[in-house]
Amino acid sequence: MRAGRSTVIFEKPPAIVASSSTVGKKEGEGPLREDFDYVLSDDTYGEESWEKAESKLQKETVKRLLEKTGMVDREVNYILAGDLLNQCAGANYAMRNFDVPFLGLYGACSTMAESMMIGAMLIGGGVAENAICVTSSHFCSAEKQYRYPLEYGGQRSPTTQWTVTGSGAVLLTNGKGIARIRSVTTGKVIDMGTNDANNMGAAMAPAACDTLLSIFEETKTGPKDYDLILTGDLGVIGSDILRDLMNRKGYDIYENHNDCGMLIFDIKQQDVHSGGSGCGCCGSVFAGHIIKLITEKKINKMILIATGALMNPLAIFQGETIPAIAHGLVIERED
Amino acid sequence: MRAGRSTVIFEKPPAIVASSSTVGKKEGEGPLREDFDYVLSDDTYGEESWEKAESKLQKETVKRLLEKTGMVDREVNYILAGDLLNQCAGANYAMRNFDVPFLGLYGACSTMAESMMIGAMLIGGGVAENAICVTSSHFCSAEKQYRYPLEYGGQRSPTTQWTVTGSGAVLLTNGKGIARIRSVTTGKVIDMGTNDANNMGAAMAPAACDTLLSIFEETKTGPKDYDLILTGDLGVIGSDILRDLMNRKGYDIYENHNDCGMLIFDIKQQDVHSGGSGCGCCGSVFAGHIIKLITEKKINKMILIATGALMNPLAIFQGETIPAIAHGLVIERED
Repeated sequence: MRAGRSTVIFEKPPAIVASSSTVGKKEGEGPLREDFDYVLSDDTYGEESWEKAESKLQKETVKRLLEKTGMVDREVNYILAGDLLNQCAGANYAMRNFDVPFLGLYGACSTMAESMMIGAMLIGGGVAENAICVTSSHFCSAEKQYRYPLEYGGQRSPTTQWTVTGSGAVLLTNGKGIARIRSVTTGKVIDMGTNDANNMGAAMAPAACDTLLSIFEETKTGPKDYDLILTGDLGVIGSDILRDLMNRKGYDIYENHNDCGMLIFDIKQQDVHSGGSGCGCCGSVFAGHIIKLITEKKINKMILIATGALMNPLAIFQGETIPAIAHGLVIERED
Repeated sequence: MRAGRSTVIFEKPPAIVASSSTVGKKEGEGPLREDFDYVLSDDTYGEESWEKAESKLQKETVKRLLEKTGMVDREVNYILAGDLLNQCAGANYAMRNFDVPFLGLYGACSTMAESMMIGAMLIGGGVAENAICVTSSHFCSAEKQYRYPLEYGGQRSPTTQWTVTGSGAVLLTNGKGIARIRSVTTGKVIDMGTNDANNMGAAMAPAACDTLLSIFEETKTGPKDYDLILTGDLGVIGSDILRDLMNRKGYDIYENHNDCGMLIFDIKQQDVHSGGSGCGCCGSVFAGHIIKLITEKKINKMILIATGALMNPLAIFQGETIPAIAHGLVIERED
């Protein structure tokens, strides 16, 4: 079942049974607009603060997931969730609405992959029958917390990414589903000395490379075995770096690599510089767009590899560099 | 293997093989001083900031754990870690020093129990052979982030707890050890409407009660089956509330309940008001004091139940109440 140092290949691969996605107004104007379940008309979501709006994103996304599946919360073994807010307040406040054992995670923008990975390991090991995995991010709460208040109107540097307002949730079970998680590969913390918090793609690309190499080596596969190698939110700059790093290691992923942060926005028309980011980027793109492509048989086998930049603003002010991580899953359509 | 809604009883219970603990100067002057592996003479730990000192606490505690066991990092399947700093920076920066797949967690002061619980589930389900579980907290970084800068010299309210400067780590494996984790019980997010961030014991006690009831019901045991029921850091006030709540539910835990936050300090002499708190409280007391008592055969069977208050300061400023969680483990000495 364990393969190499980082990978678990499942004898009974857990199934992805259903998904639910919610995005903000801007994301709803992007190229994937038709693939999301719910698009906000107003990013406050009727709440008094951006933080409360973000928490509501997770709550409502989970509620819609339960509605889709016809389940009630008491039938769910675990919810695994996290987000970017200090002390993961988005997830914590959302989860008081559900009568479900809760596992709080923090993996920055890798959290969607982390939650699905741990959920899959609990189900694959027979410890759980099902689990809901969910994450969120909100442009306004993230700008305020990580950079400047919106009212300040600071100019964004060309390498920045645009935090997605959105949430994605999936239900994993030990039964049948849309797709199966064949294997999971857990990342190590990689810090190559990047210290520009406005260029997180560059900080995260080496972590994505490290985990992708582990996946290929430990599952004995290569880029041609996959219809899609999808990173979470490296954006344009980070994706370029990853492709080149992989090329140097002897793997050509130029053709079948794509990135959630590049898919969710029309990069030039929507003025998002290097592309989308945030836990909700990978979350909503996977739960909305990708699950649709799998259902339509346009993807048979893919790698989902979400990256996270693990710094906080204070660490950067104190002169620290940016540690990063990437977690990967091999996902295959169920016939 | 699953029992009730929240508990997993292991057919092959994972073993706690070794532990390592580090505490600050004040903690090293408390009643448990002899039980910790390493006591700092200066809480800066030779670093330029409290945050860097906290991160070093985790790094050095894991290093000493590896030294004790004779293992090198590449032999470890997973490190599960978290802390109280924004974006869990204590754990994230520490883990870049180890070549080990990393799972980042956030459960506030419940993180030590959460990490051991997930680690045990991965090992119990056959997905991992071993895992290191580690947490930390630091009085100075916590005061600065959650309350006031130390220089401000704010008066502490009588119900406050004193964040422990410390770190605890344990190595879990599928082999033999000092003790075995018989079962794990995952908490739900409980919010009873408390909104006083200076009285976190009161906010967390109902979550501890909920999880403790689940443990008793789902493992078909009662208080008398345990030598010790040890909560993480309810402190004096929260412990009183928990004992009374349990009494109302028909369980008398007055005799065998204790709390890490009450054990680590001489409550009156050391001027810590309601007692110790922080991820490092449960972490260091369990990894130091409790593991020693188990080794000395003074504890045969116990419950470890660590609680976390899941708010952040901004949420409290925005008028929110405090959601809380508690995760519990049944631990039995190995003959």
